[in-house]
Amino acid sequence: MLSEFEFIGNIKSKYGLGKIGDDCAVLPKNSETDLLLTADMLVEDIDFLLDWTTPEFLGHKALAVSLSDIASMGGTPKWAMLSIAVAENLWKTDFLDRFYAGWFALANEHGVELIGGDVSRSPDKLVIDSTVCGEVAKGKAILRSTAKPGDAIFVSGTLGGAAGGLKLLENGYGHGKHTSDFLQNLILKQLKPQPQTGLAKLLHTHGIATAMIDVSDGLSSDLFHLCKQSYVGAKIYAEKVPINEGLVRHFPTIECLQMALDGGEDFELLFTVDEKDISLLNSPAVTLIGEITANIDIIELTDEGTSSILKPGGYRHF
Amino acid sequence: MLSEFEFIGNIKSKYGLGKIGDDCAVLPKNSETDLLLTADMLVEDIDFLLDWTTPEFLGHKALAVSLSDIASMGGTPKWAMLSIAVAENLWKTDFLDRFYAGWFALANEHGVELIGGDVSRSPDKLVIDSTVCGEVAKGKAILRSTAKPGDAIFVSGTLGGAAGGLKLLENGYGHGKHTSDFLQNLILKQLKPQPQTGLAKLLHTHGIATAMIDVSDGLSSDLFHLCKQSYVGAKIYAEKVPINEGLVRHFPTIECLQMALDGGEDFELLFTVDEKDISLLNSPAVTLIGEITANIDIIELTDEGTSSILKPGGYRHF
Repeated sequence: MLSEFEFIGNIKSKYGLGKIGDDCAVLPKNSETDLLLTADMLVEDIDFLLDWTTPEFLGHKALAVSLSDIASMGGTPKWAMLSIAVAENLWKTDFLDRFYAGWFALANEHGVELIGGDVSRSPDKLVIDSTVCGEVAKGKAILRSTAKPGDAIFVSGTLGGAAGGLKLLENGYGHGKHTSDFLQNLILKQLKPQPQTGLAKLLHTHGIATAMIDVSDGLSSDLFHLCKQSYVGAKIYAEKVPINEGLVRHFPTIECLQMALDGGEDFELLFTVDEKDISLLNSPAVTLIGEITANIDIIELTDEGTSSILKPGGYRHF
Repeated sequence: MLSEFEFIGNIKSKYGLGKIGDDCAVLPKNSETDLLLTADMLVEDIDFLLDWTTPEFLGHKALAVSLSDIASMGGTPKWAMLSIAVAENLWKTDFLDRFYAGWFALANEHGVELIGGDVSRSPDKLVIDSTVCGEVAKGKAILRSTAKPGDAIFVSGTLGGAAGGLKLLENGYGHGKHTSDFLQNLILKQLKPQPQTGLAKLLHTHGIATAMIDVSDGLSSDLFHLCKQSYVGAKIYAEKVPINEGLVRHFPTIECLQMALDGGEDFELLFTVDEKDISLLNSPAVTLIGEITANIDIIELTDEGTSSILKPGGYRHF
């Protein structure tokens, strides 16, 4: 069976689609600005369970995932469309009012205007498609395809938190059910992710990142996407990977590293930096975790002196 | 229970959304051009049945409905995104290859480039969200909100064909199952609609239409949308409504008029024209069916000398 990435690759090559393959498509706007466009679909019982989240969190997340795509290109989000298929039993409740309240709370924070979309009836499951249109200085979108051997690899924040939150939800923990702050924080990482728009803007303004992607599928997968698009490889130092602190307090060490490497939906930024610029990034907000190599498509993981090949892991729809 | 239009109206006024309420949102591009953006969701077992259509027709229709929105603003479609949630049993077949073949056949006809989207797993039903981005000369998008009393009301092509096709499908007829051309044509009106991009371009170039909308919900509903946005009313002459010929051959006369007035998905253009320009439209491709009045939100239907109020009818998701 084809994976979703193979399928997209096939469509792309069969129909000669040059604008597909990054977090957003880049379109010409005017002499100073390019447009960025991205779409993300969330499907009930596949991407979320209604029992685990709140309508407000879901509205927030539907927009957050697309804002993260705009951030990963160094762009500023401006406009959004929201298409939603909803079953009648949910339509009759205050679900959508609360969903939009969550959506608009985040939209207002980022100055994003809702300009369209569609409302359809669904026979059963809730399906949301979020489209966001952003802007970036002309020719300055930060792509996945421009990393080069020798570049340092950085990641923002910490990893594995969203995967840890998902595991807690699977194990019967819930939002608001427990007093422990660190468990709540893990669950919130999963249910209410924060797109790294501020950091993205800073990196864009200073022209520091040579390539960038957001960590949505998981570090191992997203680094693989970046390497594939850039025709390079990478080396990652396991001991440098910034693992979410709450994760370490609740899960065994070995599991934590796995969740940080393969767990998706942290929506942190993974980016590369020319060696000469590394000193500019002396901040606790980002961590140097490895370097780009010339070993095309090979990601090497070194862990306490031993080295292995890191395969793209994490969740796949197909 | 709120209707979908009431729901959208509430969200629009609660959050002060100025760009919602037409077929497309209009965004600034550069000094010469505006952008048009539209999204349309199609849900299995609500908007289509897999047993009734082919993957190619469905791919065609997913794009056609959005091209019709761009056409109704007088725009030219340029780029598209396609988000699709698909169940594993369908993923394993050649369904998506054939779906994309249908999509690209129409896209290539119109010079539309696929620039992004999303692929997700669905627990059962197929859900498609189509986004199209087009262009129109700056300040020249043809809106719903600019009709004025005294304007003539025109519609392109004929009406009721898609509704007739749907009724045939419901009654066990199918595409390719029957030799009668006129039944096949009705079914194709439903399964493979043709957006009126050529006529839209002509109307736009000559600046003839004072307001425009596409007939997607049904004449009575779409004319109501146009009147509501323009703060006007309308008078329609039943005997002038161009009813699909095949419909007349297969269905009783009284049912035909109802299908032409309320049946959705014909994707013809409904537009208004200043009285002085009526003579410019001496073409069999369009029909004068009535006029705009000052009776805000009231649509009067005159039929053989008697007059009644035409309520917005046709299919509603909610």
